[in-house]
Amino acid sequence: MTQDASTNRRIVLAARPHGMPTAQDFRLEQAPIPAPAEGEVLLRTLYLSLDPYMRNLMDEAGTEYAPGLALGQPMMGGTVSRVIDSRHPGFGPGELVLASAGWQDYAVAAGDTLTALGDLPQPSLALGGLGMTGFTAYVGLLDIGQPQPGETVAVAAATGAVGAVVGQIARLKGARVVGIAGGADKCRYAVEELGFDACLDHRAPNLAGRLAAACPDGIDVYFENVGGAVLDAVLPRLNHHARVPVCGLIAHYNDDAAPAAPDRRPQLMASVLQKRIRMQGFVILDHYAERFDAFRADMQAWLDAGRITLREDRVEGLEHAPAAFIGLLEGRNFGKLVVRVAPD
Amino acid sequence: MTQDASTNRRIVLAARPHGMPTAQDFRLEQAPIPAPAEGEVLLRTLYLSLDPYMRNLMDEAGTEYAPGLALGQPMMGGTVSRVIDSRHPGFGPGELVLASAGWQDYAVAAGDTLTALGDLPQPSLALGGLGMTGFTAYVGLLDIGQPQPGETVAVAAATGAVGAVVGQIARLKGARVVGIAGGADKCRYAVEELGFDACLDHRAPNLAGRLAAACPDGIDVYFENVGGAVLDAVLPRLNHHARVPVCGLIAHYNDDAAPAAPDRRPQLMASVLQKRIRMQGFVILDHYAERFDAFRADMQAWLDAGRITLREDRVEGLEHAPAAFIGLLEGRNFGKLVVRVAPD
Repeated sequence: MTQDASTNRRIVLAARPHGMPTAQDFRLEQAPIPAPAEGEVLLRTLYLSLDPYMRNLMDEAGTEYAPGLALGQPMMGGTVSRVIDSRHPGFGPGELVLASAGWQDYAVAAGDTLTALGDLPQPSLALGGLGMTGFTAYVGLLDIGQPQPGETVAVAAATGAVGAVVGQIARLKGARVVGIAGGADKCRYAVEELGFDACLDHRAPNLAGRLAAACPDGIDVYFENVGGAVLDAVLPRLNHHARVPVCGLIAHYNDDAAPAAPDRRPQLMASVLQKRIRMQGFVILDHYAERFDAFRADMQAWLDAGRITLREDRVEGLEHAPAAFIGLLEGRNFGKLVVRVAPD
Repeated sequence: MTQDASTNRRIVLAARPHGMPTAQDFRLEQAPIPAPAEGEVLLRTLYLSLDPYMRNLMDEAGTEYAPGLALGQPMMGGTVSRVIDSRHPGFGPGELVLASAGWQDYAVAAGDTLTALGDLPQPSLALGGLGMTGFTAYVGLLDIGQPQPGETVAVAAATGAVGAVVGQIARLKGARVVGIAGGADKCRYAVEELGFDACLDHRAPNLAGRLAAACPDGIDVYFENVGGAVLDAVLPRLNHHARVPVCGLIAHYNDDAAPAAPDRRPQLMASVLQKRIRMQGFVILDHYAERFDAFRADMQAWLDAGRITLREDRVEGLEHAPAAFIGLLEGRNFGKLVVRVAPD
C-alpha cells in the first residue's frame, strides 16, 4: 500500500505479541486524513523514531510512564513532522516541528504539544542525537553516572542511539570507555569511529572473561540498556561506589514471564550492598524542563566541533516500520533507527 | 567452662556453616591471656555486640569489606572493653574503650584502633543506639533515604537494632512509618513503644495485601534490612522516585546457592527503571570520618529529650554467644543483641 495525497496510512496494534513481536501483530490501515480543530494543527510525518520502549506499550500493562496501547490504536512514536494546516496561532503551514504523531502519514495534534524545529540542517537528528536519545544519554551519564576523569565507564548497546552518545560523552569527560555490542562490525565501529577504548561482542564466547581483561581497574559506571547476560558479566566487575544508571532493559522486553532459575535477585542485592553501588532508574520525560536547554547547548557545541559522531540507520517507507522495529529488538539496527515517511 | 582470672576463653570458628549455623560451627577454647607489645593495650571484654553481618564472615568468601575468617580463628565483633594493662600513652588501666576484641574474654589491641568512651552511663549503648547500629540507621535513612515530611517510610526488621532507630528518626523527621517485623509482640511494641504508625507481622499470611492497606499512599523510602519475601511485598508498593537504602539482607545470609526459580532480577530492574527508583548500598565503616560526630550529637540530644527509645536484648555470659547469634539469624532477638561478658 503506497501513499496517495488523499488518505492517511497508519500502522495499528493488531495483536498483543507473546515474546518477540511478529509482522502479524501490526496492521497497515487506510483512513481519511483528519481535520484540525481550533488550537490544533494537521501534521505530515517526515521522520518516525523507532525506539525499544515501544515494545512495552504493546503489552496491556504498558509501563509506569505510559499505559499500554489498545488493540486497533495506532502505534505511538516521536516524529519530525511538517505543518500542513494550522488552527493554532503559533504554527504556520510548512513549519517543521517535533511531535508525537505515531506510526502514520498524517496526524492532528494540539499546538501546545509541539516544538518548533526552525531550519535544522538535518531534521531527523531532532529524534536522535539532538533529541530524546541524545538527551537520555546526557542525563543518565552525567546526572546519575557522574563519571570522573580516569574512571572506567562500561556501556551496553554501545552503538545504539543512546549507547553511542553515552560512550562519546564519557570520553569527553576523561573516562576510559568500554562498550558492549552485538557483532564484530559494531565493535570495530565503536573503537575506530566513536573512539571507545575497547568494545566487546556479546555474541562471542566468554564475555565475562573478556570484560575482566578489558577493565583491569574494574568498572565505575555501568550504563544499563540491556540487562540479562550483559548484566551478568558486568556485575562482578563493578567497583566499590559504582553508579548504575538504569536506562533500558532490552533483553527483557520480550519476556512473557520471569525467566527460570536461578533467582539472581539476591546476588544483585548483595552486590549493591557490599559494593555500595548506587543504581538509579530514570525516564527521560522527567528531565526536559530542567536539563534540556543545557543538553542542547552542549550537544550542539560538541557536534559543531566534530567531537561527537552520530550515526543514523534510516529505513525508507512507513510500511517497513514493523520489520525495522522487530530488527531493533533483535539488535539488527546500526545507529539511531528512523523511518523516513515522506521527503523533507 | 567458666572464666577464671588466668585464662582467656575465646570462641573460634570450628566449621563453615551450610545454611543456618549450628552450635557445632563454634568452639569454646582456652588460651593464655595475651601480653601487650609496645603501643598495645590488654583489654577485658565487658560487652560483645552480635550483629547479622558476622554470618558473612563465617563463609570463606567473606564480604567485600572484610575477608572470611580462617577456621580456628576467634569470631570477630565489636566490644566495650576495659583497659587492664597499657603500653600505649593514650590509655591507662581502668578506662572503658570501644574496641573490636571479638568473641573472647581478653584481647590485645593497638591503641590507635580504640575509642575512649569516658564515663558513659550505659556503656553497652556504644555498641547499639549510640554506636554502630544507631549510626547505620542515621546514615542510611538520612543520607540515602532522605525522607521528607509526609512521606511514607517502610522499615524491615523494624524492632531490630537498626530498624527501630530508623523508624523513630523517620518519625522525628515527619514521615509516616510502617514497620515489618516477625511476630505480633514485636509489632505491638513498634506501634505502642516506638511510635510507628503501623507494623506488620511478616509471619502472618498475605503480607503484600496488608502492606498495601497500611500504605495507601505507597512507599517513598524502603529501608532494606532483609530481602526475600519482605522485598517481594514492598516492591509493588514503591512510589516513583522511591529511595531504597540497602543496609542488610538477613533473609539471604544463610543461602548456600541462588534460590530456585523464578528469576526475580528482571522484575526488580524493571521496577527500578520505570519507577525511577534509587537503590544504594552502604557499609557504615565508610562514614565514620565525615558523619559520626553529627550522629552522636543528634542522637544524644534525642535520647536526652526522651525522643528515641533504645531496647537492648542482653545475654549473660560469653559461652552463650553462639546460641544467641543463631537466635539473631532466626529473628528471635528483641532489640539490640549484646552479650555481657564481664561485669562493668
